[in-house]
Amino acid sequence: MSGRPRCSVYIAASVDGFIARPDGGLDWLEVVQAEGEDYGYAAFMASVDALVMGRGTYDVVAGLETWPYAGKRCVVLTHRPPERPCADETFFTGPVAELAARLGAEGVGHVYVDGGDVIRQWLAAGLLDDLTISWIPTVLGAGIPLFGALLAETPLRLVESRSWPTGLVQARYALGATGR
Amino acid sequence: MSGRPRCSVYIAASVDGFIARPDGGLDWLEVVQAEGEDYGYAAFMASVDALVMGRGTYDVVAGLETWPYAGKRCVVLTHRPPERPCADETFFTGPVAELAARLGAEGVGHVYVDGGDVIRQWLAAGLLDDLTISWIPTVLGAGIPLFGALLAETPLRLVESRSWPTGLVQARYALGATGR
Repeated sequence: MSGRPRCSVYIAASVDGFIARPDGGLDWLEVVQAEGEDYGYAAFMASVDALVMGRGTYDVVAGLETWPYAGKRCVVLTHRPPERPCADETFFTGPVAELAARLGAEGVGHVYVDGGDVIRQWLAAGLLDDLTISWIPTVLGAGIPLFGALLAETPLRLVESRSWPTGLVQARYALGATGR
Repeated sequence: MSGRPRCSVYIAASVDGFIARPDGGLDWLEVVQAEGEDYGYAAFMASVDALVMGRGTYDVVAGLETWPYAGKRCVVLTHRPPERPCADETFFTGPVAELAARLGAEGVGHVYVDGGDVIRQWLAAGLLDDLTISWIPTVLGAGIPLFGALLAETPLRLVESRSWPTGLVQARYALGATGR
């Protein structure tokens, strides 16, 4: 029997804890754009077998010219699936623990959990293994929060941290007892 | 004529952006306690001539056995000053720009701005020169936010960052054009 997959968050946040503007806008991330620097994103994506995202994140991705997740299992948490998928993504409604178990049974080893709501659901269900936050050097003032809903107190273990000349500070935290 | 003093924030926050529990409690900071390690606090305090704090912070400090800020000018922002001070602290009601100008005229060179409300007032008034945040490796889930009120978008410049084996990640940001 397969265990549940490792579940990771990899997200940028303003110093005041927002992951997007109130309208979902991400233009403020441009302050850390630097030629040839992806802050570990490509290496992280290469380690991932599947993505789970919320409907807000999906709608942004589905609007792009090219589906960016070709070759990755992609599940969208939504109560209102669209008429047809963009690529081979699937849609899911139900408890996130059930989804995690189902992905594990499919042989998925590592899941990228994306979007504020989905991250909070994963965290609340105790399903998150690690959390990489890239703090952008900006007080955004308003937006979509990374945390903010009432969550249970959760200890984190810092695995590593780095900063870049652009001012981005990245910290990777592990959750839970397994330390993986 | 003296200019306004340099104004600094030096504060610990949970990864989800709280500076205290809903009741003001700070027990959760214990996870980063380590023998002989103060994360730069003593050096920062030695550089400070004056403190400005809100009433919530003051009430905690005033309840301690010993007044911890002997030898420092200390101003409490409050609409309801107590009948008598603990030490030589003073009380102020009015625009924070007026207070900053007054402290500058007194010859104060460096002010430690403390407490969520006061920090947000200082930030909104464009009076903050630097912001040192020590992220504690904890999702607290609820509490008194560091930011959270609607603030103007404010670019920050990372001056330095460090992490410690306890998991504390500290970043120092400069604000404004002076870069001091």
